[in-house]
Amino acid sequence: MLTLDQLSLKVKEYFDAEDFHGTPANLFDPIAYTLADGGKRIRPLMLLAATDLFGGDLRQSRYAAIGIETFHNFTLLHDDLMDQSPIRRGKTTVYLKWNPNTAILSGDAMNILAWQYFLKQPHPNLHQILNIFQQTSMEICQGQQYDMDFEQRNDVTIPEYLEMIRLKTAVLLAAALKIGALYANAPQADTDALYDFGINIGLAFQLRDDLLDAYGDTQTFGKQTGTDIKDNKKTYLLLKALQTADTAQRQQLADLFSSTPADPQPKIKQVLAIYDQLQIKQQTETQIALYHEAAIRSLDSIDLPQESKQPLHQLTQKLLNRNI
Amino acid sequence: MLTLDQLSLKVKEYFDAEDFHGTPANLFDPIAYTLADGGKRIRPLMLLAATDLFGGDLRQSRYAAIGIETFHNFTLLHDDLMDQSPIRRGKTTVYLKWNPNTAILSGDAMNILAWQYFLKQPHPNLHQILNIFQQTSMEICQGQQYDMDFEQRNDVTIPEYLEMIRLKTAVLLAAALKIGALYANAPQADTDALYDFGINIGLAFQLRDDLLDAYGDTQTFGKQTGTDIKDNKKTYLLLKALQTADTAQRQQLADLFSSTPADPQPKIKQVLAIYDQLQIKQQTETQIALYHEAAIRSLDSIDLPQESKQPLHQLTQKLLNRNI
Repeated sequence: MLTLDQLSLKVKEYFDAEDFHGTPANLFDPIAYTLADGGKRIRPLMLLAATDLFGGDLRQSRYAAIGIETFHNFTLLHDDLMDQSPIRRGKTTVYLKWNPNTAILSGDAMNILAWQYFLKQPHPNLHQILNIFQQTSMEICQGQQYDMDFEQRNDVTIPEYLEMIRLKTAVLLAAALKIGALYANAPQADTDALYDFGINIGLAFQLRDDLLDAYGDTQTFGKQTGTDIKDNKKTYLLLKALQTADTAQRQQLADLFSSTPADPQPKIKQVLAIYDQLQIKQQTETQIALYHEAAIRSLDSIDLPQESKQPLHQLTQKLLNRNI
Repeated sequence: MLTLDQLSLKVKEYFDAEDFHGTPANLFDPIAYTLADGGKRIRPLMLLAATDLFGGDLRQSRYAAIGIETFHNFTLLHDDLMDQSPIRRGKTTVYLKWNPNTAILSGDAMNILAWQYFLKQPHPNLHQILNIFQQTSMEICQGQQYDMDFEQRNDVTIPEYLEMIRLKTAVLLAAALKIGALYANAPQADTDALYDFGINIGLAFQLRDDLLDAYGDTQTFGKQTGTDIKDNKKTYLLLKALQTADTAQRQQLADLFSSTPADPQPKIKQVLAIYDQLQIKQQTETQIALYHEAAIRSLDSIDLPQESKQPLHQLTQKLLNRNI
C-alpha cells in the first residue's frame, strides 16, 4: 500500500512522463499549456488510490488516470470559454491567450485524447470502464447545461441544484474511484460503495466551494470572496436562504440578486447580513457534515483494513478542509 | 448481399429508430435538430456496405454506423461555429438558431454520444475498432487545425494541401469502411485495401468539391458557385494555378486573392479566366481520375466476386459525379 504522498508522487511521475505537444502546434500547444503542472490533479489521485486500495497494479491504471484528468481539463477549457473566465489556476485561459476557435478545437482534441489514454492499456474490464467513462462524460455535459439553464431561471429548487452539482462535479470523482477499483478487479459491491463515497465527497466539496466563496479567507482559498454574490450566481447558500427567509428577506434577496452595482462590496455585505440572520453558514456546514458522514459510511462498508483506507480518508480531509 | 438502395433504406431505418432527444432539452434539442433527416449519410452507408461486402451481420455494425455519423455531425456543428457559417443543409446552423455556447456544449455531447453508440454493441474486434475511431477523430481535429492555419499562410504547397484534406475529409470515409469490414471479421489485407479505397475516394471527393465550387452548376450542386474565390480560400485549383502560372499571372492571382470587393462577380470572372488559361479544370479532372483509379485498384485487390462490390462502385460513382 502506498501513502497519500507516495500516490501524489506517482501522479506527478506519470504526468511528467507524458509529452502533450504535437503537430500542428496550434492544436497541441494549448493542450500542453493546460495539462502542464495544472491544478491539484485530485481525480487521477483518487483513481490510483482506488486501484492501490484493492491491491491492483498502478501501471495498469496509469493511463486511465491521465485520461480522466485530460477529460476534466477539456471541460474546464470549454467552460472557461463559455463563461468568459479570464484566469484559470493563475494563468490566462486558452480562449484569451490564443482565441475562441483554438479553445473550441483544442478542447475537442483533448476530449478525444482522453479516450486515447483510456484505450492505451487493454484490461478485461475495459468495456465496463469505457462505459462508465462515456456515461460520466455525458452527465457532466448535462450538469453544465443545467447550470447554464439555471442562470435564466428564478425558481430553481434545492433538489434541482443538488442534482446539477451531482452531475457537474460529483460523478467524475465517483467515476475516477470506481474505474480505479475496476483496474484492481474489485468486487461490484465495493466499486459501488466507492462510487457512492465519491458522489458524497463531490457534493460536500461543491457546498464547501459555495461556502468558501462567501465566507472564505481570500488568501487560503486563492479566489476573491463574494464573487458568487457579485455575479448573482445561484448557490446552495442563496437557495437555502430563499427557502428559510420571511417575505421581507426574500424580497430583499430578490432585489439584491437582480442588481449589479459598480462597487459590489455594499451588496455583498447586505447579502451576508441576511445569510447571518438565517444561519446559512451553519446550515450549510451541517449539510456538508451529512454528506461527509455518508461518504465515510460508504468507505466503511468496504471490508478492508482501516489503515489501507488511510489515503482516501486523508484526501477527503484535505478536500473538504480545502488545504490541498 | 444488399443493393445500394437496400443499404440506404437500412441507414434510414436505423436512424429513424433512434430518438436523439433527452434532458436537459437545451442540450439534446440541437443534437436531434442536427441528426434528424440530416444530409447524405455517406459514412454510415459506407460502413454498412463494408460489413455487407464481407457477409457480416448489419445488426452488429448498426450502432457504429450511427456513431460515425454522429461524430461527423459533431465536427460540422463545431466547424460551423468556428467558420461562422449561417446555413447547413438548408437550415440555420445551431450556433445561430440557439447560441454559441449551446453549439459548443451540444457539440461536445455529440462527440461523447458517438462513443456511446460505438460502445453499445460488444464485438471481438471492438478494441481495434475503437482505436481506429480515436485515431481518426484526432486526425480530423488536426486536419481542421491545418485548414485554419493555412488561412494565415501564403506559402501552402500542394502536398500540404493534400495532407490537410486527407486528414479533414478522407480518413473518416476510410475509417467507416475499415470499421464496417471489421464487424464482418474481414482479413487485415482486405480492411487495409478498403481503407486505401476510402482515402482515395475522399481525396477525389474533396477535389471534386473544389472544382464544383468554381465550375459547378448552382442548381445541381446546391451551393453558390465561386464562393471559394470570393472568400480567398486556398483550394487545389488555386494552388495548382500558382504552381503553373507565369510571373504575371502569379502576381494577378496574388492581388485578386487578397481583395474582397463588394461585388465579387468581376473578381470571380477574372480568376476563372486565369484558371482557364492554365487549364486548371482539366488538370484537376486528371488528378481526380488518378485518385478514382487508385481507389478502384484497391477495391479490385479484394478477392470477392465483382457483383458483391457493386454497391461500393455505385456509391463511388454517385459521390464523384455528385448526383447523390
